[in-house]
Amino acid sequence: MVADKKVYAFIHHEFVPLTEAYLHISDLAIQRGYGIFDYFWIQRGQPLFFEDYLDRFYQSAGLMQLPVPLERRALREKALELIRLNNFPLSGMKLLLTGGYSESGYEPGTPNLVLIEQAVAYPEQENVEKGIKIITHEYQRELPAAKTINYNMGIRLIGQIKEKGAQDVLYHQNGIVTEFPRSNFFIVKQDNTIATPAREVLKGITRKNVLDLAAATYATEEGNITFEDVQQAKEAFQTSTTKRIVPIVQINDTLIGTGKPGSVTLALLQQLEALEQQYIDQTK
Amino acid sequence: MVADKKVYAFIHHEFVPLTEAYLHISDLAIQRGYGIFDYFWIQRGQPLFFEDYLDRFYQSAGLMQLPVPLERRALREKALELIRLNNFPLSGMKLLLTGGYSESGYEPGTPNLVLIEQAVAYPEQENVEKGIKIITHEYQRELPAAKTINYNMGIRLIGQIKEKGAQDVLYHQNGIVTEFPRSNFFIVKQDNTIATPAREVLKGITRKNVLDLAAATYATEEGNITFEDVQQAKEAFQTSTTKRIVPIVQINDTLIGTGKPGSVTLALLQQLEALEQQYIDQTK
Repeated sequence: MVADKKVYAFIHHEFVPLTEAYLHISDLAIQRGYGIFDYFWIQRGQPLFFEDYLDRFYQSAGLMQLPVPLERRALREKALELIRLNNFPLSGMKLLLTGGYSESGYEPGTPNLVLIEQAVAYPEQENVEKGIKIITHEYQRELPAAKTINYNMGIRLIGQIKEKGAQDVLYHQNGIVTEFPRSNFFIVKQDNTIATPAREVLKGITRKNVLDLAAATYATEEGNITFEDVQQAKEAFQTSTTKRIVPIVQINDTLIGTGKPGSVTLALLQQLEALEQQYIDQTK
Repeated sequence: MVADKKVYAFIHHEFVPLTEAYLHISDLAIQRGYGIFDYFWIQRGQPLFFEDYLDRFYQSAGLMQLPVPLERRALREKALELIRLNNFPLSGMKLLLTGGYSESGYEPGTPNLVLIEQAVAYPEQENVEKGIKIITHEYQRELPAAKTINYNMGIRLIGQIKEKGAQDVLYHQNGIVTEFPRSNFFIVKQDNTIATPAREVLKGITRKNVLDLAAATYATEEGNITFEDVQQAKEAFQTSTTKRIVPIVQINDTLIGTGKPGSVTLALLQQLEALEQQYIDQTK
């Protein structure tokens, strides 16, 4: 490892050292919290499931009426160039699109596109081995299909999660559970059906991959999941780009299943890791 | 007037030219839309109703768990120093507090405090003379008591407001109207009672001033206001720091009262302007 390795970002149409990547305070992200983003992992120089993330990035931008200043091919090339420049062994990249410099401080300007890559570590093995405890909170994200930068509720709940000795918070509305601030939710029913909420959630790329993998072996369901469904489940887990699959063993004061990570969950995690390797080998 | 007059802002604990006021992209406003602000007017060097705005700024910060890096006395002095530096005839100042530079991109860091002052113009006389048309949209802000920077819904509705030939959008939930993205709502009932929504709204400083002024002459009510109440009202208006009082003459396809700005509304606007002058004369 080289000490003080210089990390680059892409901003204002050029590559600059990350430490020098600034936005003027007239940007609508700063003025009005207005922007969208996406985030993917890079292993051995390959952005994992890249096209799926690009799909969602452009979709979020469209839902928030933000024109992306680069066409898909050009954006893909800039991301790959940044990956080559930084040359991390394992990293995550954020594609960020803000409302741009706004003269009125309210009407969007020309969106600012920022690419940020940072070294990451593989998910904590302890969480996989022991499973995590989650709490619940009634809340519905405003525009669930878009990956906006609005995380007000999630961030305000950080303290409450810690106080309760939990690791995450599951949102629900009218008794129907939906998603975590940054991950999707699944249960394994007693008959091994793999089920995940269908409505009012962000459609995670890992969620999609897990549904595809599960469908080879089990019945899968996208639909409403109630608190009662969760309590009666055999297993539960969360999925995200950074966490892959994490077993959930307790929701509020209730143990799920045996209170230990379940075999279906752990098998799916193995399959997901294998899918990642397969993707990298095929893309190389 | 001096051409190219240099405008200053306060950021990173110093006064810098506004054109050089930047935040690093690790700031939680940019990463997660996390921050609060407040905004007041300055006439003849005097910040109008300054203490009320400072109250609300610190209250919003507390609700979002953001410690303000300056105590109230120091913040007041920095604001006054910026006002002297810029020396605008008429201006507005934004106090902005972000989640700060965040290492994880999720957990708040040390909040960044930014003071931005810009020249403003008095509200459009045309809107006062003719009154405005508004549309309605079902939506509830997440943490209505806090002035957060989250304006996703308001900004997304800009296009719809223009398409319908309207000037603003009134939020409602379950048939109860609440507030505009950036102003409060009032009706004048047939018996001249001045009424404004009480719950799930930001408590505007102009709203408070108008309630106080109205109470000298009329009955006032803070409570639930339904669509039916609006349709049966004699007059309606909106209040905000930048707009003062603007008569509303049409809501969706329905005229309000005579369809012209009402005499109670216009009298309150005169009283509000007088209150501003009185405040300035007393504070000098």
